[in-house]
Amino acid sequence: MKILITGGAGFLGSLLARTLLQREQFMGRMPDEIVRADLARPAADLLSDARVRPLVGRLIEQCPAIVNEKFDVVFHLAAAVSAECEADFELGLRSNLDTTRALLDALKAAGNRPRLIFASSAAVFGNDPALPLPAIIRDDTLPTPQTSYGIQKFICEQLVADYTRKGFMDGRSARLMTVSVRPGQPNGAASGFLSTIIREPLHRRPAVCPVRPETPVALASPHNAIEGLIAVGESESLGGRIAVNLPALTTRVSEMLDALEAVAGKAARDRVRFEPDPVIARIVEGWPSVFDSSRALRLGLQPDPDMISIIRRFVSDHAITLGGT
Amino acid sequence: MKILITGGAGFLGSLLARTLLQREQFMGRMPDEIVRADLARPAADLLSDARVRPLVGRLIEQCPAIVNEKFDVVFHLAAAVSAECEADFELGLRSNLDTTRALLDALKAAGNRPRLIFASSAAVFGNDPALPLPAIIRDDTLPTPQTSYGIQKFICEQLVADYTRKGFMDGRSARLMTVSVRPGQPNGAASGFLSTIIREPLHRRPAVCPVRPETPVALASPHNAIEGLIAVGESESLGGRIAVNLPALTTRVSEMLDALEAVAGKAARDRVRFEPDPVIARIVEGWPSVFDSSRALRLGLQPDPDMISIIRRFVSDHAITLGGT
Repeated sequence: MKILITGGAGFLGSLLARTLLQREQFMGRMPDEIVRADLARPAADLLSDARVRPLVGRLIEQCPAIVNEKFDVVFHLAAAVSAECEADFELGLRSNLDTTRALLDALKAAGNRPRLIFASSAAVFGNDPALPLPAIIRDDTLPTPQTSYGIQKFICEQLVADYTRKGFMDGRSARLMTVSVRPGQPNGAASGFLSTIIREPLHRRPAVCPVRPETPVALASPHNAIEGLIAVGESESLGGRIAVNLPALTTRVSEMLDALEAVAGKAARDRVRFEPDPVIARIVEGWPSVFDSSRALRLGLQPDPDMISIIRRFVSDHAITLGGT
Repeated sequence: MKILITGGAGFLGSLLARTLLQREQFMGRMPDEIVRADLARPAADLLSDARVRPLVGRLIEQCPAIVNEKFDVVFHLAAAVSAECEADFELGLRSNLDTTRALLDALKAAGNRPRLIFASSAAVFGNDPALPLPAIIRDDTLPTPQTSYGIQKFICEQLVADYTRKGFMDGRSARLMTVSVRPGQPNGAASGFLSTIIREPLHRRPAVCPVRPETPVALASPHNAIEGLIAVGESESLGGRIAVNLPALTTRVSEMLDALEAVAGKAARDRVRFEPDPVIARIVEGWPSVFDSSRALRLGLQPDPDMISIIRRFVSDHAITLGGT
């Protein structure tokens, strides 16, 4: 089985590749070859695996080659992120809409009806100025995106649904929740601080929180997000072609910091300074925080149990030594 | 005031131009110039009006010129219709998605923040195999389009909302109901028969109905549809950027024929033969028939009162002589 991961050198793309290689099967078959398309080369540990092949460059330029590859499965994660798309309107349309369309056309031209898992986002939901979102978001709640990123993700969901309806592929869209805790540098997403305020203090570095402590958020750990993409990808019956909201842990910034303190002590929590940023706050407060993800639960998925377990997993994954100040 | 009507040589585009010229104002200003962009030249009566200028050719090729025109108002009606898009997937994407995107980019580049009225369609609603539509469709009902035409219209609504949110234009989308009675030849829309079964018998010609008599449908007369586009265009407060469902008269094919008989006699009704077409029936039966168009009603719009009044207006507009067989 030949799998393509777009955005494969990113954090989630890398974790997905590692998870698939460890599982040794997807849809009951062995992933003989994982092709990771991205602007950057994959991490060294993945490159050393004989089953991994990098495809480096702009995805849209690789689409002609993708036609001939005849992938069995495609995880489409590549995207410009929310703050980038808000700052550069054309970049967002090009990177998210045009590139996805070119990829879908390449898979259609390949003619082998591959399975496609499109990584959409809970950012499709936003508060239209005159149309408040319901308190609980379901899969059939009308998205009214309030960012270009959200609009582009929602448009791509529609394309995936129609290319699937027409029989060109077996596509499905899974809406990722905000992923926390992400390692490494913030990636320009408006939600970046939801990782920063945990990761940086764990590394004994200061962090700035741009929203109020009582801000409610819907999160998933990296492992939970990847489990969601895999389960949606393997499912034979999603119940319709609309996107699946993956499970979310509903919490608040203040509760995240309580968990940080519980795991790493008061000194860690004290490294977080509140410094309101109205632009980020407006975007993040427009995102819903409570999801009824019934379809995802029917696939056997569950939200992370609590913030403490998310932080403990991050500490263990990254071999962080706690204690001391 | 300089107005562009795309699809301006079509039936609705022509009726819109005539209505605007008769009203002598739109948004309180005089329409000095109406530019009608279409593949075909406009009708003679419109060409003879000094205020009307034709722009003949493919809209996408005219977009560079549209930048310099700096239109105050744009009614975007141009589209490939539902059956065409279902038969030719690429044509639909090109004519409906790419052309709309090019038009929006041209209006953005013009830089004068024009008002844009996008003619969307109730065809955005369809029954997802595993997700039945609610009995009553509201503006915040999640569209699950089951045709490429519906998908493309829904995607364009999203683009209009985002170009508007970003301040590039003041756009709004109005979802047209199936228009009946249309004059002239069927235009390839799956809903064409809903005009044919009334128009042809009135002209003493036979007609074929491809769906069962009890099939419920949501209709609007041509005048009602145009009134809707104008009211949505003139409104200063739509209540959010999501598309407005225009008012619909809910009726059934059998009731349409009852009305035909009431207006034009039993001989007229007898000219309609039922000949089921599973492809058309599947598409049409997937469309909803009952709408709660509250936002449209708040703009002062109303559905047509009944089928008899729609047919009488058609008879009078087209100077049809009734009576005799």
